[in-house]
Amino acid sequence: MASIRGYVFDAYGTLFDVHSVVDAGRAITADPLALSLTWRQKQLEYTWLRALMGRYEDFWTVTEAALRWTIRRLALSADEAQIRGLMDAYLSLACFPEVPEALERIEGRPRAILSNGSPRMLQAAVASSGLGPHLPHVLSVDAVRTYKPAPAVYALGPRALGIPAGDLLFVSSNGWDVAGAKAFGYQVAWCNRLGAPEEELGVRADFVIGRLDQLPR
Amino acid sequence: MASIRGYVFDAYGTLFDVHSVVDAGRAITADPLALSLTWRQKQLEYTWLRALMGRYEDFWTVTEAALRWTIRRLALSADEAQIRGLMDAYLSLACFPEVPEALERIEGRPRAILSNGSPRMLQAAVASSGLGPHLPHVLSVDAVRTYKPAPAVYALGPRALGIPAGDLLFVSSNGWDVAGAKAFGYQVAWCNRLGAPEEELGVRADFVIGRLDQLPR
Repeated sequence: MASIRGYVFDAYGTLFDVHSVVDAGRAITADPLALSLTWRQKQLEYTWLRALMGRYEDFWTVTEAALRWTIRRLALSADEAQIRGLMDAYLSLACFPEVPEALERIEGRPRAILSNGSPRMLQAAVASSGLGPHLPHVLSVDAVRTYKPAPAVYALGPRALGIPAGDLLFVSSNGWDVAGAKAFGYQVAWCNRLGAPEEELGVRADFVIGRLDQLPR
Repeated sequence: MASIRGYVFDAYGTLFDVHSVVDAGRAITADPLALSLTWRQKQLEYTWLRALMGRYEDFWTVTEAALRWTIRRLALSADEAQIRGLMDAYLSLACFPEVPEALERIEGRPRAILSNGSPRMLQAAVASSGLGPHLPHVLSVDAVRTYKPAPAVYALGPRALGIPAGDLLFVSSNGWDVAGAKAFGYQVAWCNRLGAPEEELGVRADFVIGRLDQLPR
């Protein structure tokens, strides 16, 4: 195993707790968890489909489209103000409790966020979570107008940090993102917060951890 | 609207009823519908992810990988013979009851299947459903080693039939496949058998029908 000269973090679900998105759902449904899960699944589907179709729209647009589909799919109703309220939850996320200390422990090493989020969404989340000082590089797929797990996205990390992928540790809570980063050539840690089964995509994480304060150094 | 000079059909869920896959699930679970739905969702996810990663494996391989993930996700257990039994359900599909008559009505016009399925899977389904005589062209994504909704897949239809996409009617029960075909340039009919909400992908079907015997001519 090569040494780890820098760190690249996924954002949503890895650094940022999207629980406030669930909370916002209470405005339109008695089952905000179902809303949140369906919305998240569709949001990812739309990123994959648009990337494959070659019809990129940014993550804000895709996220709102997925929300509108989800509301119809679950036979809910929401006025425009309620839709704005749900979308705005993405702009005011908290980080998971262990994250600031975990990032402090790797202070001094090159560190980046690499996320599907649009630049505006990521700037807002970095600000609301207070993680800005810990993360000098905030890299959005928007620079290459496609989505994870396209190799062009993962190439942004080594380019920004000036370090080959094989000397970087990519950290994500999403199993499919882990597979994409590993296929690209990173060392990879899967932060499996929820005990999900491993994806069957032909590649495996180098490390499996339950929280970010278990990061290998 | 241009005239329709030929027809290109999606396979699974459009021509072929995958109900026998649900039936096969009874061997390992009391809730075969949950197994079937989770398996199908993961099967599609893996096609999208592998296509985006540039790591194509054929649909048989992807379908089995999705099944193994699903069994672990739902905390079921299955021995290798049971897994083979579930997979083999894909080789002995029936068509939906109205399909033979619907295809007879367009006899004489160019017609093709265009599917994610591997050549072997499609040949088996065409044979078991009895649709072979109605479908002179059976086109698999395997020829271009990627998956729907990549434009390279949809290009196979016009190439095989010698007719521009805009003069062909693409028919699918999958909303995301409808979007991919429409974005490519086909005329498109969405066979919305289950009353699903329309996808929010920025394109719309030209026709929405409930069964294949409602095909426009």
